Amino acid sequence: MTGLSRRHVLTGAAAASAATALTPLANSPASAAAPLATTQAPGWYRYNVGSYQITVATDGKRSFKLPDSFVLNAKKDQVNEALLAAHMEKDMMTIPYSPIVINTGSKLIVVDTGVGEANFERSKGVSGQFQSNLKAAGIDRDKVDTVIISHFHGDHINGLIKPDGSPAFPNAEILVPAVEWKYFMDDGEMSRQTTDRMKEVFAGTRTVFDALKRKVTQYEAGKEVAPGITAVATYGHTPGHISYVVASGGKTLYVQSDVTNHPALFARNPGWHAFFDQDPQMAEATRRKVYDMLVADKMMVQGFHYPFPSVAYVEKAGSGYREIPVAWDSSL
Amino acid sequence: MTGLSRRHVLTGAAAASAATALTPLANSPASAAAPLATTQAPGWYRYNVGSYQITVATDGKRSFKLPDSFVLNAKKDQVNEALLAAHMEKDMMTIPYSPIVINTGSKLIVVDTGVGEANFERSKGVSGQFQSNLKAAGIDRDKVDTVIISHFHGDHINGLIKPDGSPAFPNAEILVPAVEWKYFMDDGEMSRQTTDRMKEVFAGTRTVFDALKRKVTQYEAGKEVAPGITAVATYGHTPGHISYVVASGGKTLYVQSDVTNHPALFARNPGWHAFFDQDPQMAEATRRKVYDMLVADKMMVQGFHYPFPSVAYVEKAGSGYREIPVAWDSSL
Repeated sequence: MTGLSRRHVLTGAAAASAATALTPLANSPASAAAPLATTQAPGWYRYNVGSYQITVATDGKRSFKLPDSFVLNAKKDQVNEALLAAHMEKDMMTIPYSPIVINTGSKLIVVDTGVGEANFERSKGVSGQFQSNLKAAGIDRDKVDTVIISHFHGDHINGLIKPDGSPAFPNAEILVPAVEWKYFMDDGEMSRQTTDRMKEVFAGTRTVFDALKRKVTQYEAGKEVAPGITAVATYGHTPGHISYVVASGGKTLYVQSDVTNHPALFARNPGWHAFFDQDPQMAEATRRKVYDMLVADKMMVQGFHYPFPSVAYVEKAGSGYREIPVAWDSSL
Repeated sequence: MTGLSRRHVLTGAAAASAATALTPLANSPASAAAPLATTQAPGWYRYNVGSYQITVATDGKRSFKLPDSFVLNAKKDQVNEALLAAHMEKDMMTIPYSPIVINTGSKLIVVDTGVGEANFERSKGVSGQFQSNLKAAGIDRDKVDTVIISHFHGDHINGLIKPDGSPAFPNAEILVPAVEWKYFMDDGEMSRQTTDRMKEVFAGTRTVFDALKRKVTQYEAGKEVAPGITAVATYGHTPGHISYVVASGGKTLYVQSDVTNHPALFARNPGWHAFFDQDPQMAEATRRKVYDMLVADKMMVQGFHYPFPSVAYVEKAGSGYREIPVAWDSSL
């Protein structure tokens, strides 16, 4: 770096050098300033797995002040350290949401649904983007054949219904994990909940599924839920939490759902227990098994809470794992 | 991972389990299959640096069979090892191109221009995307006040002209590095070139700048080329190669131009000499200085040949550096 040393650049010299900047440039048109833009690019991205086409359509994000107890078994200082190491903001947590669509060639399948369109206005467009991004990607919600739900947290199921309570995917069959259904729709289990958080989750499942008149099809782990899409039990985050292996033409993709929340915290520190992991020990054991497999088999992973477009490879890093985002391909 | 063991999932059991899959699902609508999409999302992305707005608009990419001599001082096997470590394809090289637009609030400034629209048809849309992505981002080429060129390689200057040879940014002043201009527009220098590659670069500069009737404004390193945008001499890749520090509201961005080509190879291995580094030793020295600074100052870097959206932080990794892509923000 000849000509302008590091310290020169970085100690306000840029401002100082304004005095010696080029004289006003000839030929500069007197055009009005272009207004600053107010919109981000639409958040969708497409890639192929064999003959299957995956469209990631982000639902946006939620940003909030980092709670003291965001990680149950780590101090806030340690969490901040991890945020800073990932070049994220201190004392703030931002969690992205990215549902996907799988076009198998014969079926159009949505996996998880985001926080719901009702949140779009409420959040000033920060979340609840799934439907607008689907539309931007040219996907007609009325053409969706199947919606597969991984687990019953609100950011995965609330997008099943429109703000008026009608089905968001009117022509789709809704597939739900049998274990999750049995647990969360059990009124006895509900009556035994003691925390506000868990009471809300139980109430939320009833709001959504009652709006759908409980018309769902339950599926078992270990089975194909659609051609080439196998449900894998990854229990812990919730009692019936499911991930998926998508296989087509000799290629595979692991759709991890919430095996980790944000990878900067929970892939890097698989032993950390997020406050929303219902059975933290089981969630941790699941996380380690899944991530060891992703590393050993060099398997591509799609992560609901990974930064958009949320598709990566995973490698070992220190006592945890690091995600290597798949490079954006500007052509299909 | 209960229920379905790793080996079960990964040894073709997914196919085998089809036999035991759920019976054909009730309520499945007999809708026609949705056609597979043929287009990728538009390649633009926006973020703020202080009160300045950066729009990255990718020009696409070039993919080619890895030449034996792509890295002058490394064996092809070593290059392949680096590709595989980054989960990229063996024996193939894919180089993305991402010019940017800086809106300072009073000036609309393009930095570098891609391979040119003429390549869009020629490459079936794989490259030459800059203008279509600008348009998708709502940026009117006629409103661009300034185009700043970092160096005179074709993927940076060819987009200055339309396929018919007229200016691609008709109302913009074109700023070029004075050292680069002096070298490449010198007919004596041109006459002394011995390699096809270098003869092409010299011829290319004449094609582009003659089409523009050589109406350019030369700028010196170490000066502001626009308010808050300081040119930094990062010579080596070419004799007059320039990077930029963009500073606004206490925030800074380092626009590295071609200090590295693809970071998976040349940030990870700063000692590697890409065959298009004109003075490999000087380019390497520049690369190490710039990257040590990016690490020490935790400075965000925009890299022309980084995977879109091409903005990252850098950290030390082994004997080189690793880029940490900035998380996509789904809101502006």
